[in-house]
Amino acid sequence: MNILVINAGSSSLKFQLYNMDHEEVLAKGKVERIGMESAILSYEPESGAEIREVEEILEHTTAIRKVLAILVHKEHGVLSSMDEIDAVGHRIVHGGESFSSSVIVNEDVKREIKRLFDLAPLHNPAHMLGIQAVETNMPNVPQAVVFDTAFHQTMPPKSYLYPIPMVLYKKHKIRRYGFHGTSHAYVSERAAAFLRWPLHELKIVTCHIGNGASCAAVLNGRSVDTSMGLTPLEGLMMGTRSGDIDPAIVPFAMGKEELTLNEVTSMLNKHSGLMAVSGLSSDMREIVEAMEAGDRNAALAFDMYEYRLRKYIGAFAAAMNGMDVLVFTAGVGENSAAMRRAVCRNLTFLGLELDEPANEQPSAAERAISTTGSKVQVLVIPTNEELVIARDTHRLILDSKEDVV
Amino acid sequence: MNILVINAGSSSLKFQLYNMDHEEVLAKGKVERIGMESAILSYEPESGAEIREVEEILEHTTAIRKVLAILVHKEHGVLSSMDEIDAVGHRIVHGGESFSSSVIVNEDVKREIKRLFDLAPLHNPAHMLGIQAVETNMPNVPQAVVFDTAFHQTMPPKSYLYPIPMVLYKKHKIRRYGFHGTSHAYVSERAAAFLRWPLHELKIVTCHIGNGASCAAVLNGRSVDTSMGLTPLEGLMMGTRSGDIDPAIVPFAMGKEELTLNEVTSMLNKHSGLMAVSGLSSDMREIVEAMEAGDRNAALAFDMYEYRLRKYIGAFAAAMNGMDVLVFTAGVGENSAAMRRAVCRNLTFLGLELDEPANEQPSAAERAISTTGSKVQVLVIPTNEELVIARDTHRLILDSKEDVV
Repeated sequence: MNILVINAGSSSLKFQLYNMDHEEVLAKGKVERIGMESAILSYEPESGAEIREVEEILEHTTAIRKVLAILVHKEHGVLSSMDEIDAVGHRIVHGGESFSSSVIVNEDVKREIKRLFDLAPLHNPAHMLGIQAVETNMPNVPQAVVFDTAFHQTMPPKSYLYPIPMVLYKKHKIRRYGFHGTSHAYVSERAAAFLRWPLHELKIVTCHIGNGASCAAVLNGRSVDTSMGLTPLEGLMMGTRSGDIDPAIVPFAMGKEELTLNEVTSMLNKHSGLMAVSGLSSDMREIVEAMEAGDRNAALAFDMYEYRLRKYIGAFAAAMNGMDVLVFTAGVGENSAAMRRAVCRNLTFLGLELDEPANEQPSAAERAISTTGSKVQVLVIPTNEELVIARDTHRLILDSKEDVV
Repeated sequence: MNILVINAGSSSLKFQLYNMDHEEVLAKGKVERIGMESAILSYEPESGAEIREVEEILEHTTAIRKVLAILVHKEHGVLSSMDEIDAVGHRIVHGGESFSSSVIVNEDVKREIKRLFDLAPLHNPAHMLGIQAVETNMPNVPQAVVFDTAFHQTMPPKSYLYPIPMVLYKKHKIRRYGFHGTSHAYVSERAAAFLRWPLHELKIVTCHIGNGASCAAVLNGRSVDTSMGLTPLEGLMMGTRSGDIDPAIVPFAMGKEELTLNEVTSMLNKHSGLMAVSGLSSDMREIVEAMEAGDRNAALAFDMYEYRLRKYIGAFAAAMNGMDVLVFTAGVGENSAAMRRAVCRNLTFLGLELDEPANEQPSAAERAISTTGSKVQVLVIPTNEELVIARDTHRLILDSKEDVV
């Protein structure tokens, strides 16, 4: 069975075509600058060089048509016909309280995703354009949706409620949702498999630290807390997002710098984090390079990022009354030995002992970086959100076919 | 030496008169509703019943004059003349980055406190009224100021800076200051004395949980982190303050409920916390009572308060790579056995073991509530911010006299 995975943004769209018999990626690519005359389609088949085409792509329906065309292209394609695509799986950022797992798209599901536009105004409308574009181009192909929030729907009220007037929750659904759920779910499952220990007996803290970053407390396989909240702004310091701040800074900064509310929100999301403190970059690789070259602002940015992350790990250990496993994933987590070392060095009070040579060894494999005597198992688990979307879609399609029989 | 301690608010004022030879309180009281025709002066001498007078008190100078009058009152007074007051010590909420310890008031100090009005618009102007009222009434008596922020001035940049554009720090001093410093300093010193262990060898987490609430990480006697930030809004859930929330909730709630920025700020400071979640009370005693009577909202409020506090304790243990001592103080910390039990029950992963009978035993004394085998010493230390103000003032006056000699 072949599954096309789509992650649609408002002016861009990423895709992967999976053959689920061997869980292999047949081709992948993206469309950028949708809405412009000079949109760019990049396409990379499993074997063969990357292709880039610049052309007018004014909306998502055209973008999907171009993607399908190149997938079945005589020379560059990996399929002989569109009929070989059995289903499409979409990444959806916000599932609100409506979705605690992936589902097949139907009219009710679409209505619900639209109802949630308010909670994710930058993401959900774009995802919906992706769903509609697939409908238009492939009207008979089933679609599934996989939500970034779904894994965190197991959080108890004491984790997901804010201590603010309850009318804001009851009327407007202001609560913690959390994001990166697909990744937190995947790496916690992989961690248990790697350790050959039942997931339902483990206290895991998962650190998904990429350009966006969040931690989760995964108790017995269920998310019981996470650092992102109503929006992805809360929690850890990130590439360009501040994470936690005194909420009183919002009005204070507005008054001092004569900013509008939108400008402050944009400042906290796009001009804060590593970028703001270092004055250099939102990319941890460049921060570490500059730090090693003696840049003091880069060192400060690194220290603040590490310190705030370490405090969340301590907080989530306290949330679960213990931590058996600490997992690092995503760009920084998978690749920055310096960050992992800095965090782990100051967690020895938990009986955690880093295997320094193992930590330094670059690798793309799942691996342990704690010593055999460490009381906390520290793992690096490369995440793969696209694979989870393909798997969920695959499983849902198989289940729905069974239902029909 | 007799020291008058004053904590001046915008429409009220509390005072204690200390005899520092035995550190005893000779009299204490407060003036409420300053600015109104029906202001209330309450006065309680060391021995003797409380006295209440209702009269017109339109500003702070009159308030101080009334306080002095009753202190030397023929029948109710504890002094025979105003000359027996050797110095006055004031509590000042915000010392910004200018004050890392208590100081004698002079023109420079007054100018600096005024410059900080911006950072504490509700508090510092009122404190200044108190200083001026004392000057008018007792022009020759030296005054000292003791800052809530001073103890936290030892925080390193990675703790006090926010990951936001650095111009906000450089130009407007937007950073973490922390509050309750007088209390955190006092109870951490008392904890070391109680344990007969050098303060400079201890990792202490102090929980000042009253109606306002904050935690501090006290490493070797110095504050290295605290939960309150630029303002007292950040950090723990409190009686009516939210503590930490996704900062994006500010604009989101404004849009949804059509609130102004001031209204949201007021909501987060005055109508959130225990009050908002329980719908009943901002007072932990009433919350616990209602919870025990089966009220589910009260139980949720209790759980959220406990959970958020416990996460901060875990975070600060991670901040210091360990915790030797956990101190509870202030109203909730000193009196709520239920809250202390709930927090400690889920910190056994740190080797912390609560002595349940000791915890349940009501007492006003400094005491240990952990077992002898506990790896973390858990203490209840009643705080006494007024005594610290009296002591600091006393010491500064003695030092200044030495200087003159």
